[in-house]
Amino acid sequence: MTPRTLAGALLAALTASAAASLEAADPLPSWNAGPARRSIVAFVENVTREGSPAYVPPAERIAVFDNDGTLWSEQPVYFQAFFVFDRVRALAPQHPEWKEKEPFASVLNGDVKTALAGGEHALAEMVMATHAGTTTEEFERIVTNWIGTARHPKTGRLYTEMVYQPMLELLAYLRANGFKTFIVSGGGIEFMRPWAERVYGIPPEQVIGSSIKTRFEIRDGKPVLVRLPEIDFVDDKAGKPVGIQMRIGRRPLAAFGNSDGDLQMLQWTAAGSGSRFCLYVHHTDADREWAYDRQSSIGRLDKGLDEAQARGWTVVDMKKDWNRIHP
Amino acid sequence: MTPRTLAGALLAALTASAAASLEAADPLPSWNAGPARRSIVAFVENVTREGSPAYVPPAERIAVFDNDGTLWSEQPVYFQAFFVFDRVRALAPQHPEWKEKEPFASVLNGDVKTALAGGEHALAEMVMATHAGTTTEEFERIVTNWIGTARHPKTGRLYTEMVYQPMLELLAYLRANGFKTFIVSGGGIEFMRPWAERVYGIPPEQVIGSSIKTRFEIRDGKPVLVRLPEIDFVDDKAGKPVGIQMRIGRRPLAAFGNSDGDLQMLQWTAAGSGSRFCLYVHHTDADREWAYDRQSSIGRLDKGLDEAQARGWTVVDMKKDWNRIHP
Repeated sequence: MTPRTLAGALLAALTASAAASLEAADPLPSWNAGPARRSIVAFVENVTREGSPAYVPPAERIAVFDNDGTLWSEQPVYFQAFFVFDRVRALAPQHPEWKEKEPFASVLNGDVKTALAGGEHALAEMVMATHAGTTTEEFERIVTNWIGTARHPKTGRLYTEMVYQPMLELLAYLRANGFKTFIVSGGGIEFMRPWAERVYGIPPEQVIGSSIKTRFEIRDGKPVLVRLPEIDFVDDKAGKPVGIQMRIGRRPLAAFGNSDGDLQMLQWTAAGSGSRFCLYVHHTDADREWAYDRQSSIGRLDKGLDEAQARGWTVVDMKKDWNRIHP
Repeated sequence: MTPRTLAGALLAALTASAAASLEAADPLPSWNAGPARRSIVAFVENVTREGSPAYVPPAERIAVFDNDGTLWSEQPVYFQAFFVFDRVRALAPQHPEWKEKEPFASVLNGDVKTALAGGEHALAEMVMATHAGTTTEEFERIVTNWIGTARHPKTGRLYTEMVYQPMLELLAYLRANGFKTFIVSGGGIEFMRPWAERVYGIPPEQVIGSSIKTRFEIRDGKPVLVRLPEIDFVDDKAGKPVGIQMRIGRRPLAAFGNSDGDLQMLQWTAAGSGSRFCLYVHHTDADREWAYDRQSSIGRLDKGLDEAQARGWTVVDMKKDWNRIHP
C-alpha cells in the first residue's frame, strides 16, 4: 500500500465511520427527510446555538403538546371515552337506575353511537358519574389497571401502543436540547398522569388537562382528596392558553397540536417575541392510521389548517412525513 | 525532618485541608448545629443514599414551601398587602369614587389599620380592584417594577432582601440533592412569579398560589390574557393539598411552612408512604425579626405547633437555630 493509498483508505474508513455514527445518532429516525423535519431541526438548532441571535436560555425552552391526535391516536372516539364506557359497565351494578337512563342505558346495551348522540353533554354526564366519588389515589389505581389491559376495538392493541413513534422521538429530541416538555390536553389530567411519565417521559407536574374539583378530607385520621362531580377547568380551545399561563406561567417556545382545539395555544405561542415554532399534525394516512380533517367531529382541523397555511406553520403530512406511525 | 515527622506533618496538613474543604462545602452555613439542622441532613441523606431502604428516586423528590413567613418575612402584614396599598394609590386618579369608599378611602388617607379592619373581605376587595383589568404581561411589568423599588416600612429594605438566608441555603441544598422545589403559597401566583426565579431559584412553573381567572382574547390581532375580577383558586389551608395535587400530581416528600394555613399541606405530606419530612418555622426572634405564634392575626401558628409537637415534626426556633436571618 503506498502512502497515498493508505491515506485514501484511512479517509474512506473515517468518512464511513463518521457517516455511520451520524446515522446511528439520528434523533428522528421515523421522520422522513422533508420540509417538516427540516423545519423542526432548523428551529431547535437556531434557538439552542450559543451566540445565535435567536438563542434562548434553557429555562425558557418550554414545549407544549396536545395529547389526543397529537401524541396518540384519537379515532373512532377519544380513548378516554372508551375508559368512560368501561367504567359505566363496571359501576352499573351500583346504579340499577342506569338501565333506564340515557346515555348510560345505551352504553350498557353496547350501543355507544346512541350514547354519544347526546354530544358533549352526554359525555360530560358520564365523565362526572364515573370519574368522581373516589379518592385521587383510588382513581389513579383504576386508570393504571385499565390502561395496562384495555385494548382498542379496531387494532386490538393497548392504547399506549397507539402513541406516535415520531412524536416520542420529537419529545426526546427536544428534551436532549434542553426543552421542558408539557402535555396541554383537553383530556382529563388524572386520566393521563398515571402513564404519561412511563410512555412519554413527561412527569405528572408537566401534565395539564381538564379537571374536576377535589376536596381535602380527613377520613379515619387519614387525609384524602375526594374527587367531586363538578367541573374545575376545561383545558380546550381558549382554555389552553389560560391553562398554560396558570400552570407554566411562561409563554411556550414551541407548540404542537392537531385540531382546531389547539389553535389558541398555537396563536398564543406564535405571538411571543423572537423565534417560535408551531406545528400541526395532519391526519392523512387512512391505511396506517386514519385520514380526517375539516369534516371530522373528533379532532376537527379546519380553521387551524387555514391559519397554519397563512402563517407558514409546519404541517406534518403523516402519510409523507412519517415512515412509522405507531411503535 | 525524620520520616515519622514528615508523615505526621503530612497527616496534619491533610486533616486541616480536609476540614477546611468540609467547612467550605457546608451547604447550610446559616444553620446552627442543633436538632433542626440535624433532622434535615439526616432526612436528605436517608432518602438520597442508594441502597438505603428509604431511598427515593429523583423524580419523586418533591419539596413544597410556603412563602409568607417561611421563605420571607410577613410582618406587620403580608408584603403583598403593601403592594395592594401602593396599587390603590397609583390607581386612585382613575377611581375618584375611592375617596369616599372603604376600604380604599382609608388607604388613601394613610390609615391602613382601618382599611384592614374589614378583614379578609376588605383585602379581597382591594386585590380584585388592583390585580384585575390588565393583561398578564402588563401585570408582570407592574409587579417587577414594584418589587425592584418598594421598601419595607420598618427595615427600609427591598422586600426581596427580607427573604430568609437559611431557607435560601435549604432550597439550594435540596436541589443539589435532586429535589424539585415548589412554592405553595396563599399569596398571588402572579405576584410571586416575576421574582421567584431570581430570588429563590424557583421557575414560574414551580410556583403555586392563589389566582384570579383570566380570559383569552384577540386584541388588535394580538392574543392576550386578560385578568378578571373573579377568584379562581385560594391556595390556603385545605386548598394547599388540592393545589398540590392539581398542579404537581405527586405527593411531596417534604413540606415546609410556618402557620396553621400550612397544616393541611404538612398533614398531606406526612401521610405518604415511606420517609417524609415536615418542618415548621417558628418565629421566636423579636430582635432580629418578629416573635409571634398562637395569637398573631398574620401567620398564626397554634394548631400546627401542637400537631408538630405531637407528631415529632421539626420545629425551627429562629432565634436558636439560625445564625443569620436575612441575607
